[in-house]
Parts: sequence; C-alpha cells; structure tokens
Amino acid sequence: MNAEILSVGTELLLGNIVNTDARDLAVTLSELGINVFWQTVVGDNRERLTQAVEIARRRADLIVTTGGLGPTCDDLTKQTVCAALGVELYYDRRAEDELRAYFRIGKGGTMTDNNLQQCWLPVGCTPFYNTCGTAPGCGFTAPDGTHVLILPGPPKELNAMMAHGGVDFLRSLSDEHIVSHNIMTFGMGESRIESMLRDEMNALQNPTLAPYAKEGEVRLRVTAKAKSEAEAEAMMAPVVADVQRLLGDKVYGIDTPSLEDTAMRLLLARKETFAAAESCTGGLIAKRITDIPGSSGVFRGGVTVYTNDVKMLLGVKPETLDRYSAVSRETAVELADCVRVRLGATYGLSVTGVAGPDSDGLHPVGTVFVGLSTAEKTYVRALQLGEKSDRSRIRTLSANHAFDMLRRCILGLPVE
Amino acid sequence: MNAEILSVGTELLLGNIVNTDARDLAVTLSELGINVFWQTVVGDNRERLTQAVEIARRRADLIVTTGGLGPTCDDLTKQTVCAALGVELYYDRRAEDELRAYFRIGKGGTMTDNNLQQCWLPVGCTPFYNTCGTAPGCGFTAPDGTHVLILPGPPKELNAMMAHGGVDFLRSLSDEHIVSHNIMTFGMGESRIESMLRDEMNALQNPTLAPYAKEGEVRLRVTAKAKSEAEAEAMMAPVVADVQRLLGDKVYGIDTPSLEDTAMRLLLARKETFAAAESCTGGLIAKRITDIPGSSGVFRGGVTVYTNDVKMLLGVKPETLDRYSAVSRETAVELADCVRVRLGATYGLSVTGVAGPDSDGLHPVGTVFVGLSTAEKTYVRALQLGEKSDRSRIRTLSANHAFDMLRRCILGLPVE
Repeated sequence: MNAEILSVGTELLLGNIVNTDARDLAVTLSELGINVFWQTVVGDNRERLTQAVEIARRRADLIVTTGGLGPTCDDLTKQTVCAALGVELYYDRRAEDELRAYFRIGKGGTMTDNNLQQCWLPVGCTPFYNTCGTAPGCGFTAPDGTHVLILPGPPKELNAMMAHGGVDFLRSLSDEHIVSHNIMTFGMGESRIESMLRDEMNALQNPTLAPYAKEGEVRLRVTAKAKSEAEAEAMMAPVVADVQRLLGDKVYGIDTPSLEDTAMRLLLARKETFAAAESCTGGLIAKRITDIPGSSGVFRGGVTVYTNDVKMLLGVKPETLDRYSAVSRETAVELADCVRVRLGATYGLSVTGVAGPDSDGLHPVGTVFVGLSTAEKTYVRALQLGEKSDRSRIRTLSANHAFDMLRRCILGLPVE
Repeated sequence: MNAEILSVGTELLLGNIVNTDARDLAVTLSELGINVFWQTVVGDNRERLTQAVEIARRRADLIVTTGGLGPTCDDLTKQTVCAALGVELYYDRRAEDELRAYFRIGKGGTMTDNNLQQCWLPVGCTPFYNTCGTAPGCGFTAPDGTHVLILPGPPKELNAMMAHGGVDFLRSLSDEHIVSHNIMTFGMGESRIESMLRDEMNALQNPTLAPYAKEGEVRLRVTAKAKSEAEAEAMMAPVVADVQRLLGDKVYGIDTPSLEDTAMRLLLARKETFAAAESCTGGLIAKRITDIPGSSGVFRGGVTVYTNDVKMLLGVKPETLDRYSAVSRETAVELADCVRVRLGATYGLSVTGVAGPDSDGLHPVGTVFVGLSTAEKTYVRALQLGEKSDRSRIRTLSANHAFDMLRRCILGLPVE
C-alpha cells in the first residue's frame, strides 16, 4: 500500500509553521509498512484542494489529510475531499454530544453555532472523536477504493487521534511491517563510504541500504519490509553485520543519537569523567554534552579559553604560547592536561584552532588541534578542516573529533 | 508570480527529518511577494520526480527544488528536472575548481570521482556556487517559460545559497520591490504584544505588520511592497517608529541578528569585555557569543561550572553552597563576581538553575538565577521559566536573559 500525505493550511504555505504533522505521520505510516511516496501541501482553498485530491487518488492507495477541520469558514477539508471522491456527509449526533461536553454546555459553557459544522462526517466512515480538541476525524474507503484518513492539524490532536483511532484503522488494511536501523559512523566521508558500499547498495532491494550525511557524520540506514518485525530484523542482521565489518571502528553505534551520547554512556558505565578546555569551539563541547540529561555524572566542567591570558590562567605556560602560538600541538597538549588536572577529571579534552572567517595570520582557516589527556598519555589530532568551511562547520567538526577521540580512547582504539 | 516548492528526499518521506527547508523558502518567497500555492515532497526516485515536475510546471510559474544535488547515485534532481523541462546540462569548470579547493586537491586533500557529477549544470543557468558545502545550485528559465531554482537540501547550504544567489535571481524576475524589517524584542510575550498591537496590525494592508515568536523572543516583521526600495522604506518608517514608541526598551534592535550580537556590538564600541560562569546553561552563552566572528574582542572566556567543586575552584564559597544551595541568588552573585575578577573582564555573567528534566530536590524545574557583575554592583534576575518547559527551552531562555541583562546594563537601563 502506498500513501500520500495531504496537508491543508495556508499557514504552511506562508512558512508560519513547520510541517511537523507530515513528519509524524510519515514515521507512523512507515512503521506500519505503508510507503509514503508523496507529500503535498495546499492552502485553505477549495479549488486547489480538489485538484490535489484528484491527483492523489490516481497515484496513492491511501490519502491522509491534516488540517482544515475546524469551525471557521476556512475549514473546508472534509466537504471538499468528500465531494471530490463522491462521498456524502451525514450529521453525527455523537460528535455533537462530544462537542457539547467539550464546551461544557449545560454546565455554564457556551459554544458558537459554527462549531456544529464539525459534526458532519462521511457516510460509512469510522469516526475518530477528538480527545484533546473539537474537530473529529475519520477513516473511510471511497467508492473508487481509495482509503482516506481525515485528521486535524494541531499536532497534539493529530498525534492523539492517530494513536487512538488512525493506527487501528490502517492496521485493518495492511499486514506488512517495515523496520529500519541507523548505523552511525564518524571519520569517513559520504563519498568514500558510498564508493565502498555502492555495489552492495545497488544490489539490495529488501532490505535497502542508503547513506545520509549530517554535519560531518554519515549515517547508513538499513530498512526491511516483511510480514513481521522479527522477520524484518532477521533480514537486516547480515547487512548490518556486513557494514560493520567493512567500516570497522568507524561505526560508533547502531541507532544511537550522537557521538557525545555514545561517549557519555561509555563514561557512565566506567564511572569516569571528563573536562574540556575550548578555544575555537568556545563552549560547544560543553553545550553539547550538557544538552543531554544526566551529563552531570560524567562532565566535570569546561573552560572557554578564548584569550591567551585565560589559557595561562588555566595553566598553559607563557613560553608555549610564545614559542608555538596558541594554535599548536603543544598548546593543545597543555590545555588538555591542565583542564584534566585542575578540574579533577579522568580525561581532559582541548580544542584550539582557527574557526574563521579570518585567519590568525599564522595558520589557514580550518587548522585545528584537538587534544585528549589521560593520566598516562596525551593525544593530539592535527586537523585541516578546509579553508572554505564556514565557522559553524569547523566548530561542529572539531567537537565531533573531540568526542570521537574520547570514545576511541575509552575503547582502547587508536586515538590520533 | 506563483511558486511550487518541490522537496526531494526519501528521508522526508520516511519522516527522518522535518521539512524546515520548505518553511524557510516559504518565508523568503513570501517576503519577495511570490505566492506559494503548492509544496510537494517526493523521494529520490527518477520517475516520481519527473511526474512531480510535469505537474508543477502546469500550475506554477516558478519551481523551487531542494535536495538531491550531492555526489551519490541517489542524487538525481538536476538531471531529472532538466530532462523533464527539456534543458541540457553542461560541465561547469568553475564548479570543479570550487570542489577541488573545497577538498584541498593539490594541498594534500583527496576527492572521490563521484563528486564531479555535481559540476553538471543546466545550460544558460545562473550558477550559485556553494559557500558551505559541495553541490552548486542554480537558477534558470526553461524553454516553456517556467522559472526554476535548484537548491541543496542541507538547511545551512540552502539558506546561504538563497541569501547569496537565489534572492537576486528572483528579484531580477520582477519589478516590484518588497522590503521587510524585523523589529527585535525581548521581555514581553507574544500574546501581550499581539493585544497591544492588534488594531494596528489589522488596519495595516501595505505595509503589513506581523509578530513571529521564536525561542522566548518576539519579532515584529514590517513588510512594504512598492515600485522602489526607497518608497517601501518611506512607507514603513512611521510603522517602525510607532512600534518602537509602544514597546520602548523591549526593542533591542531593528534587523539585528540576535541578543548576543547586539550585546557584542555595544561592548566593542566601548572596548569593554565580559566573561561567563555557567551552570545549567553549560556553555551555551560561550557557544552563542563565539558563534559570532570577532567575539574574541569582547569575550574573555567562560567556565562551565557543572559541579559544586568546580564552582568552588572558581571561587564560590563552600558556605554559600551549603547554606543557600547551588541554585540560589547568592551563588549566582558569587559566580558572576568571581568570573569577572578571575578572567579580568568588565562584566561577569552567571547562570545557575534547574534545566530539568529532573528537579534538584529543592527547586522546581525552570528555577534559574542569572547574575551580572560589574565593578560597582551585582544584579540578579530570579526566573521561573515554567515546570512544563523542556530542558532546551529553559537553557535558551536563561541565556537570552543573560545577554539581555548585559545589554540593559551597558545602556544604563534597569537590569533586574
């Protein structure tokens, strides 16, 4: 079964809101084994909505609409969709009772008459009464065989209605399951991974394998479709194993959210901690680790050493800065050592470099040294992140490298 | 002119990412006076993308595509859109030069061959070279008169390319000028501002006035449409003045990018500096100020004091932590004073609070104290940011308050 999500709302076309409804529905539909091949957004406009339904019914087995169910004259989804599909509306008494309860009619509440237009539903539908708003939704199958879900726009109402009525309606139409896994990698570019895995990716039909680049990382998504979740998992297992064998320790997790999350969980398990001295990343490492609830168990604290005298306050020797400059392997070593010792952490991380847009006069933009200090040894990665990379990318990649070094050190893998 | 946004990416259909590109484009197109009547999302699939272009060319004057421009075999937007519209591709030498520079070819870098497919561009197009990624985009007009913008999917690349090439290309297609100004405010909620300005907003047709809430701030956008930029500016001036008069010192700038940027410019003009001691914001203040090139002139450095003993290392008295706890007005004062003195800054900022999701056992989630220390006086704002707010919102709002206090202190406005 393949589906089209049809979002109705001028506020989407104007960019006043982001279409999180389409994302939420896409996730749920995909979990149910329903392929979403199209998403369309159209305004609160009868003519264009009719056109959209005409197009969708030809190319999709299931149309899921969101929005346009409320009490105002702009709300015309139900009438328009049903007219286009040749389905009559009837007045649903229970919908009216639910509305009266919502507005506390008879208990001091009031309700404007235009609310009652929400009680008209397609003949033969399964109504989904709204548990956290006014407009009911519904599921039905049109005379031409097109399945239709009509759902409200506010995300809270949409998600509650999908969970309580929509999913059951769809399950009754399909018996296929789709399951995905994300293989998280760091340290190899998308084009390199693609060229290593191209044959495998092209050969695979079910499961499929596809790369997604994101801020200096590459994720490989494996997706399988089967009669049951267990069968889908079994189909994916050899592909996941194969990718892990090919990419080795560049794989930092399966379905894990981020490098910092992986590092944090490794530290928690070992009751170890880290601290960070950041020059060009300016607090980004601290910010990213403290984004995660529970990071106080592993993060002692950080110092943003944005000027040379603050570097010296932390303990970097003036001679080091004079002789090698702030952007150097030597400074990275002292920063990592000092922050580890001063803050009493198991590991000290440091970053010093040129994030741009201007050079420091000594090094090209993108020159970055990332240090990792342990009680036994201090490691440094000397990076060239590209003179054309922007400040934000250089900072993000530098922090990625820092978390990657931490992970690799904890696991006993080569760090530099 | 009316437009269709055509987003290409299986990851959108699977719900792996939200379509913020469509939102960002919709806002920009609407500011340019271009109506967006349709948005379509289609996967990385040649046949369906061709169908989508066939439909879009019939109902839109302008098609804006996002995504599918990268080096992998999944990336087929340019080829497919151009084939559908009858436009040939040519190999752009400058695009190759830009790629070679990006990958530092000749300076030790390597690039896989599949990257070169990105250098093929539509004959007769205006190329938009990518300033923060690899794939170039372009603008062109097809033989049937359809205007086309082809843009990359990663939001940063998309937005940079729209700002640097896309907007100019679209402006050249029309002789109407639409100009906007953003009035940036902090410290007043959207509903309060909306009720103060509702009559004015409803009465205005050209220019228009509309509020946009964003992470604890409210921006008021004034937009005028006229035959020249000067005429549009003249139409907007009285509205901007009126809003400034009504909202007073809650307005922190016109078209300024952020609170931190405003604070930075004030400090630069006075040759003053600040330093920050962050507990619950965990480096976010440092990260946000160092996001801005040139911040090294005003930011001495920061300390993420994520644990009590790191707070004491900075100089907070053990008695203060014992008697008042880490989340207290007194701790905020000492943190701000210590970081100012230790890092030799004009101003010291501090944040200590409960960002959640768990309480500290003493205070509800959302309890935050923000300190600002000067040589003369130390100020504290005691905030209740809402027990139902999430961690990210509490951290963002806390940092906003810190930058707002700094701005107000520099300007001699009431701080607390």
